[in-house]
Amino acid sequence: MVELFPNAILAIHGGAGVIRRADLGPEREVACRAALETALRHGYKAFLDGGLALDIVEAAVCALEDNPLFNAGKGAVLDSTGQVSLDAAVMDGKTGSAGAVTGIRSVRNPIKAARAVMEQTPHVLLCGDGATEFALQSGLELVPDAYFVTEERRRQWEVQRGRGTVSLSEDNKFGTVGAAARDQNGSLAAATSTGGMTNKRFGRVGDSPIIGAGTWADNRTLALSATGHGEHFMRCVAAHAVHSRMELLGAGIGEALAAVVDGVLIESGGHGGMIAVSADGTAGLAFNCPGMYRGVLLEDGSVRVGVFSDPCA
Amino acid sequence: MVELFPNAILAIHGGAGVIRRADLGPEREVACRAALETALRHGYKAFLDGGLALDIVEAAVCALEDNPLFNAGKGAVLDSTGQVSLDAAVMDGKTGSAGAVTGIRSVRNPIKAARAVMEQTPHVLLCGDGATEFALQSGLELVPDAYFVTEERRRQWEVQRGRGTVSLSEDNKFGTVGAAARDQNGSLAAATSTGGMTNKRFGRVGDSPIIGAGTWADNRTLALSATGHGEHFMRCVAAHAVHSRMELLGAGIGEALAAVVDGVLIESGGHGGMIAVSADGTAGLAFNCPGMYRGVLLEDGSVRVGVFSDPCA
Repeated sequence: MVELFPNAILAIHGGAGVIRRADLGPEREVACRAALETALRHGYKAFLDGGLALDIVEAAVCALEDNPLFNAGKGAVLDSTGQVSLDAAVMDGKTGSAGAVTGIRSVRNPIKAARAVMEQTPHVLLCGDGATEFALQSGLELVPDAYFVTEERRRQWEVQRGRGTVSLSEDNKFGTVGAAARDQNGSLAAATSTGGMTNKRFGRVGDSPIIGAGTWADNRTLALSATGHGEHFMRCVAAHAVHSRMELLGAGIGEALAAVVDGVLIESGGHGGMIAVSADGTAGLAFNCPGMYRGVLLEDGSVRVGVFSDPCA
Repeated sequence: MVELFPNAILAIHGGAGVIRRADLGPEREVACRAALETALRHGYKAFLDGGLALDIVEAAVCALEDNPLFNAGKGAVLDSTGQVSLDAAVMDGKTGSAGAVTGIRSVRNPIKAARAVMEQTPHVLLCGDGATEFALQSGLELVPDAYFVTEERRRQWEVQRGRGTVSLSEDNKFGTVGAAARDQNGSLAAATSTGGMTNKRFGRVGDSPIIGAGTWADNRTLALSATGHGEHFMRCVAAHAVHSRMELLGAGIGEALAAVVDGVLIESGGHGGMIAVSADGTAGLAFNCPGMYRGVLLEDGSVRVGVFSDPCA
């Protein structure tokens, strides 16, 4: 399923997966929709202030990271050691620059650490303790590890730990947040942030911090952030597969998203979704699972949000 | 520059960069050529034994990892702590499965750890201490950290450390090893292994362990391993960019390699090279810098190796 919105500034997601109205409950649904709207408003403020596409996606993702409802920043799931282990990536469609971190803690907004990698180092991806060490030196806001941990995530972790299983967040929801934006100059950027899988071990890295898998931006085609079963997105190089269809075949954003989300990924067993904004300002929201927390901000300042398979409203 | 060889089984590289005959010296050139031939022979033995493409690339890469002349396994460059920090990836073109590790030690052949990730876990990429912890449990041959460290690498590290610089191996050579192969059933696989950059910090991850950047295999198109300035290969998703030109445009291996190595990568300032074997058994060796340690094994059992810009012989 692909929804398209012309004249868009920003598209966001807060994860995808087996999200059903009956399980979620009306109260939480309202809270999730409000959180998505808030993130879109933060992005709109950055847009109106004349911010770069990078600033718009950063503002939206920070709002989602700060909200404990989503599996990124505060409220991220806990790994096998009972701590958070955070991944994030950002890409600038104008320059092709990119930055990413995997396995970090201590920085309130991992997406800012990813941007610092892009802007302050010659590297693209920093991993583990080294990435945290860099982040500690980069002048970003630091928080104690307890900041990230919510009661709900600790309960989920105890359940998974008791079973000895690893879960993509609770009940097959792929918790990740992300944004794609087009600024007043028509430049694009994408950002993705995640806490990964509950009770994950061994320093597992998913698709979110991998340029071309979960995050991509190129001013000639589109900016895109993915969410889903990361290993499949990595094996399919899913974000770059969408880009390639636009770059090489001249496909439109809707056609390219459908070919990958409803085609390549389904064939590989990869469930999840993508949000994107194309060079001509069309937003595309696509997913191949029951639901995706998603939203879009249009040029007239209006917003549309959605959770289940019924269209955004 | 792209060299093509029909009727090939295996292509390998041992890194690329500013490699000049005068700097290398005749003795070391002979040793490097002999090491490349040895790796090709190990791959040929696996082929004749009826091994999978995965077995052929693993055999060739293990031989290169075991040889201290190349920046992978024994003889890898040292990071800012004076230790090795090894990355490797493998991909199976038949199933689309992939496995990779970054920042590991203790395992004699990192490429075997990458294959264990692919075959023994549901994950694609494991990072840092967690990856080493997994490798220690996976039943692979372990070695003390001192095994990897050569006198020459320690001297290079002391020079870089004295200057406070980070180098892609000594004197702008991009040390990495890799292989791409086609087995008796026509199935493809690719493998890449590296020690990264001398005096590197912060858990920097390059393109080698990133599926789609430095390593790729798909039976419909080609198997490919890259070497070069990793950050550029990551931003361009270089390996998948070659694949996409073959998959979506129907380009041949030579045309697709040229478009990326002499086109996309040059435009982004990315120096290095790629070796590949296509679904029809054509090997392609491409690089946009003065030299690349490279070799190819043909179906008649003969080998060709090259170091500088003159053709393989």
